[in-house]
Amino acid sequence: MLKGGYQGKVLRVNLTTGEITKEELKEEMARDYIGGAGFGLKYLYDEVPGDADPFGEDNKMIFAPGPLSGTSSPCASRMSVVTKSPLTGAVGMATSGGHFPVELKFAGYDALIVEGKSEEPVYIHIKDDQVKIRKADKIWGMETFDTQSFLKHDLNDQQLRIACIGPAGENLSKMACIINERRAFGRKGVGAVMGSKNLKAIAVRGTGTVQIADENAFKEARSAMLKHMKESPVLYPSFSKIGTPMMVDAINALGMFPSENFMTTGEKDYTPDIGAEKSIEASIASEPCYGCPVGCSQLKLVRGSSKYIGALSDPEYETYYSFGGQTGVRDLDSIIAADNLCDRLGLDTMSTGVTIGFAMELYEKGLLSKDDLSGFDLKFGNHEAMYDAITEIAYKKEGLGELLADGSRVLSEKLGKASEDYAMHVKGLEFPAYDPRGAKAHGLNYATSYTGADHNRGYAFQEIFSIPVPYAVDRFAIEGKGKLTKWDQDVRTATCDCPTMCAFLFDMALPGTALENTANMVNAASGLSLTPEEVERVGERVNNLARLFNISAGMTRKDDTFPKRIMTEPIKAGDSKGQHIPQEDLDAMLDEYYEVRGWTKEGVPTKEKLQELNIKLG
Amino acid sequence: MLKGGYQGKVLRVNLTTGEITKEELKEEMARDYIGGAGFGLKYLYDEVPGDADPFGEDNKMIFAPGPLSGTSSPCASRMSVVTKSPLTGAVGMATSGGHFPVELKFAGYDALIVEGKSEEPVYIHIKDDQVKIRKADKIWGMETFDTQSFLKHDLNDQQLRIACIGPAGENLSKMACIINERRAFGRKGVGAVMGSKNLKAIAVRGTGTVQIADENAFKEARSAMLKHMKESPVLYPSFSKIGTPMMVDAINALGMFPSENFMTTGEKDYTPDIGAEKSIEASIASEPCYGCPVGCSQLKLVRGSSKYIGALSDPEYETYYSFGGQTGVRDLDSIIAADNLCDRLGLDTMSTGVTIGFAMELYEKGLLSKDDLSGFDLKFGNHEAMYDAITEIAYKKEGLGELLADGSRVLSEKLGKASEDYAMHVKGLEFPAYDPRGAKAHGLNYATSYTGADHNRGYAFQEIFSIPVPYAVDRFAIEGKGKLTKWDQDVRTATCDCPTMCAFLFDMALPGTALENTANMVNAASGLSLTPEEVERVGERVNNLARLFNISAGMTRKDDTFPKRIMTEPIKAGDSKGQHIPQEDLDAMLDEYYEVRGWTKEGVPTKEKLQELNIKLG
Repeated sequence: MLKGGYQGKVLRVNLTTGEITKEELKEEMARDYIGGAGFGLKYLYDEVPGDADPFGEDNKMIFAPGPLSGTSSPCASRMSVVTKSPLTGAVGMATSGGHFPVELKFAGYDALIVEGKSEEPVYIHIKDDQVKIRKADKIWGMETFDTQSFLKHDLNDQQLRIACIGPAGENLSKMACIINERRAFGRKGVGAVMGSKNLKAIAVRGTGTVQIADENAFKEARSAMLKHMKESPVLYPSFSKIGTPMMVDAINALGMFPSENFMTTGEKDYTPDIGAEKSIEASIASEPCYGCPVGCSQLKLVRGSSKYIGALSDPEYETYYSFGGQTGVRDLDSIIAADNLCDRLGLDTMSTGVTIGFAMELYEKGLLSKDDLSGFDLKFGNHEAMYDAITEIAYKKEGLGELLADGSRVLSEKLGKASEDYAMHVKGLEFPAYDPRGAKAHGLNYATSYTGADHNRGYAFQEIFSIPVPYAVDRFAIEGKGKLTKWDQDVRTATCDCPTMCAFLFDMALPGTALENTANMVNAASGLSLTPEEVERVGERVNNLARLFNISAGMTRKDDTFPKRIMTEPIKAGDSKGQHIPQEDLDAMLDEYYEVRGWTKEGVPTKEKLQELNIKLG
Repeated sequence: MLKGGYQGKVLRVNLTTGEITKEELKEEMARDYIGGAGFGLKYLYDEVPGDADPFGEDNKMIFAPGPLSGTSSPCASRMSVVTKSPLTGAVGMATSGGHFPVELKFAGYDALIVEGKSEEPVYIHIKDDQVKIRKADKIWGMETFDTQSFLKHDLNDQQLRIACIGPAGENLSKMACIINERRAFGRKGVGAVMGSKNLKAIAVRGTGTVQIADENAFKEARSAMLKHMKESPVLYPSFSKIGTPMMVDAINALGMFPSENFMTTGEKDYTPDIGAEKSIEASIASEPCYGCPVGCSQLKLVRGSSKYIGALSDPEYETYYSFGGQTGVRDLDSIIAADNLCDRLGLDTMSTGVTIGFAMELYEKGLLSKDDLSGFDLKFGNHEAMYDAITEIAYKKEGLGELLADGSRVLSEKLGKASEDYAMHVKGLEFPAYDPRGAKAHGLNYATSYTGADHNRGYAFQEIFSIPVPYAVDRFAIEGKGKLTKWDQDVRTATCDCPTMCAFLFDMALPGTALENTANMVNAASGLSLTPEEVERVGERVNNLARLFNISAGMTRKDDTFPKRIMTEPIKAGDSKGQHIPQEDLDAMLDEYYEVRGWTKEGVPTKEKLQELNIKLG
C-alpha cells in the first residue's frame, strides 16, 4: 500500500467513447517503474501495438509526473509524455517543467492516459475529481499563449494550468510540440499526436496536496540534496544566472558547437555574438518552474530597433544552436524571436531549426531552388528568412511550409538519396546541439537512445564536463563507451525521467549521488524501500521495455546509426579537429553496448535479460 | 457615514517621494460626485493646475471605479481614469471594463491617485492594504499581454489583475492607451501620461467584498434593472451576439459610416465586407467583463491563410471604422490583427487608425511622399501598409513612426495649414465612427465634450437609434440640439461614468429610466438618498467642473469647433446626402447649448451656475 508521494490514481480519458475512468495505481507499478517516463513506457508497451499508426486511434498518450512532483523536493515539477512518435516511428518520450506537472498531482493523479480519437476538436478539463471533455471548436486555430489565457478566462479560473497545442499540432506537423506556459514537451512530434486526436488542450486545476510517508526521512534526504546543490561549482554560481545558454561557450571551446548543418563545426566561433556574455546582457529575469530554487530559465526581451523588437522568450542552449550555429545565424534577437514564435505556433525549436539549416544547405547546393522554397532566400545566416519560414512550416503552407513541416528525414526522402547523407537525424529525430564526432559516448547515445538522436536520454556529462562519474573518460576514445552509455541512459532515466527530477540538476550537482538521492527521496515520500541498485535497475528496465517497443515497431541494429557526414567527414578545425565516427568505430561501440546490455549482436534483449528485469513479453 | 457601495478609502501613491497614503472618502464627495469620472474630475480640478505640463510632475492620474463596482449589479465593472491629456491639453478621461476595476474595489479602494514621477521605471503592486512601488526595469519594453503574464508569474499570483502600458506609452506616443486584459483605457493618450511617470503597470489583488447598505432595496432595484434589460429589443437579441460591430450596418444605413478620412462618407457600402454578418462569422466566443450577463465583447480569430492568420482580438465598432472605413480597408482579418497589435503595443485603435487614414489622404494628395513615410505605400485600402505602420508608430521609428505617433493634430501642425482642413479631430482628439454631418447633436457633442471629439461623453442615441428619450428629434435639425446635448452629456456622465455603469446598457436598455435606476442602485448600495434630479445634477456638476479645468488650460469658444471638411463639404451620397454643419449652424447650436448650460456666450460657466451647483472656484 503506497503511503505518500503517489496519489494512487491513474486517470484514463477515452476520446472515442467519451469514457472517463479512474484506476488504482498498483504498488508493483510504483516499485518497478517509479513514475514519469517509467509509467509512460509501461502503459505504452502494454497497450499500444508496435505497428500502430502514430496518428491512429490505437496510439495513446501517457502524461505522468513522478512521486516527487508536488512534494517539497526542489526541481521536481517535471512530467513526461509517452506516445508512439510520428516523427520517428519509435517511442516518443518528451518531458517538460513548469507548473502543469505538479498541478496534475494536486488534482489527484499519478498519470493521465489519453486514448482514442475525438471526431471534433475537444479539450480535457480537470478540476480535482471532476473531469470533462469539452468542445474546443472556439480555440481550434489559436496559438498556444492565447489558448491558455482564453481558457482561463472562459472557465473563470485564473489558476488553471494548461498544456496545449498550437497550429502546428493541429496541422499534424511532425515537429509539433505541446506547450504549457512557456515550457514545451518539445520533441518527437508529440504535439501532432494530440492534433491527430483532435485534442487541443488539457486544463488542470488541483487543490489537493501530496502526502509524505516519512516526514523526517524526507527532510533529511532533502537537506542532503540541497547541500549537494550548494556544493556544485556550477549550479548556483553560473547556471542559475545564465541558464543553458552558458553551453554555447563550453561547446564552442570543445570544437563541438554545430555550425551550418554540421558542415563547418569547429571552424567558426559563435561566442562573440551569441555566447554567455551576450546572453546575460539580453536576460531580464528568471522564470522558475514550480518549487525550483535555481531558476535557470532566463527570459530575454528584444529591445533595440530590429525586426524582432519586443519579442520575449527564454531560448535554451539547444535553440541557440538550432536557430544559431546550425543555420549560421549570429543575430541573438532573431533567435529570441524565433523561440517565441515556435512556442506560440507549437513547434519544436530544435527540429524546426535543424530542418531549416538542412534546407539551407540544400538550397546553397542547388538541391532546392528559390521556387521550391516559396521565394525564400534561404541562405546560411539569413535570419529573416529563417524567422519567416517558421510560420510557413506551422501552417504547412504550400511550398516551403509543406516541404519542411515534417522534419529532416521526410524532407530528405522527398529529395532522394543525394540529400540523405547530411540529413542530421537518427531514426528521424534531428540532432541536438553537440556534434557527436567530438564526444563518442554522447554520439553512441544519439545512435541508441530509444527516442532517436536525443541528448536527454543519456547525456555524456563525463565527456562534456569532464566529470569523472562513475569514472573518467577520454571523449575521443571508442573503447568503454558502450558501458558508459548504458550507465548514462539507465541512471538518467531512473533518477530524472521517472521520479521526476530536473536533468540539469543531475548533470551539474548530483551525478555521483543521484541513485542514492533518488532512493532516499522516493522511499521517504512513498514508503517504498528501493535500494540505489534497484533504482538503477528501474532505468535499465525502462530502456529495455522501450527497446522492445521499438523492435516491435520494426527497428533493428541498422537504425542505431548516424548520417553519413558524421561517419565520413572529419571535423576540420578546433578542439575536435580530425574527429569523426567511421562505421567500424560505431560498430565497435554498438557491440560493446549491446553486450553490456545483455542484448544480442542484433540489439535484441535476450530472454535472460528480460527475466532478470522481470519483464514479461507482451 | 457611508454604509456600503463605497470602501471609504482613497489610495494615494506619490512616485516622486515614494510616499503611499490612505485617505478617508468623505460622504460629501460621494454625494456630490458619486464615483468614477466624478471623483476623477474633482481631484483633477482641485489638485492639478490647468496649465500643468501633461508629462510633468504636476500632472496626476486618478483611477476610480464607482459605488456599484464590485456589487452584484450587472455591467458595473467599469473604471475611469482622469488626467490632463497630452493629446488634447484638456481633461483626459478614459474608461475601461474588464476585471481590473472591481479588483481595486475588492482591495479596498474607491480611487487610486497616482502623482509625481519616478526617476526609474516602476510598477505599483497592491495586495489589499499592502501597497508597494516596485522596480519595473525588467518589464520596461514589454508588450502589454506579456507584461500581464510576466507579472503574474513573477509575483506568483495568477489572480492579479493588471493595467499596464506597452511600448507606445513608454515612448510617449500621444495616442498611447492603458491595457488591462484585452480592455483599454483607450483614448486621450492616458498611456503616455503613465509612461511619462515611468509607471509601467498597476497590479492589483483584492480579497475583500463590497458591502450593501440595504440588501432588500438593492435586490429590488437590481430586479427592475434586469427587467429593463430583458425588455430591450436590442440588448440580448442582437447586441449580446454581435457586440458593437452591429453598428457597421446601422451607421452605413444612415449614410454616416466615415469613409476614407470622411472624404467619401455615404458613397461606399462597407457592410458586405465588414458588416454584422461577416462579424458573426468571424466570432468565436464572448469574453465578458466581470459580472456582465450580456458579454458583448466578441472574440475573433483569423483562420484562413492571410498574412494575419492566427490573430485573435475583439475589435469594437470604433475599430471597424478606424482601421476599416476610415482607411478604406475592407479586409476584416487585417482589422482583427490591427486591433490585436494595438492592444499589445498599447496604442489607441481609434486615434491610430484615424491618423493613418489622414496620412493616406495626405499621401494620395501628394502632401506626404513615400520617402516621408519610410517607404510605405500608404494608399487608401492598403491594409498591409496600414498594419505594418502600427509598429512604426508604437516605437516612434524614424520617418512614418515619428511623424504619426502623436496623432492627427500634431501631424497637421508639422505639415502646415494645407492639411488642417481635413485633420479629423476636435481639440486634438480624433473623430469617432459617426460622421457628425448626419447627426447634429452627436456633432455638437463632439464640439463641446470636455475631452474633445468623444462619442462616449454625450452619445446622441436619439439621432442614431431614433429612441424618443427624453423626446423625439430630427437628426438633421439644428434647433433643440443644444438642449439635447446638455441632457445627453449630463445624464450619461451621471448614470454611466460615475456609478460606474456600462454605457452600452444605457443606450440600449435604460435611457428613459437611467436616472431613477442610478438613484435606486446607488442609494440602496451606499445608504445615500439621492433623487433622480440630484443624480442628473451630479452629471451637470462634473461637466461644469471639466469646463472650468479646460478654461484654465486656455480653451475658449473657438475650440468648440470642427475641422473645415465637416463645415464646408456636404456628404455626397446616401441617407445623409447634402448634410454638413456650416459655421452658422454650429454657432446656433453652441449659442443654445451655452445658454441652456447657464454659460456665457463665450462658453464660460457663470457664477450663478457654479453657486447653484455648489462648485467653489479653485
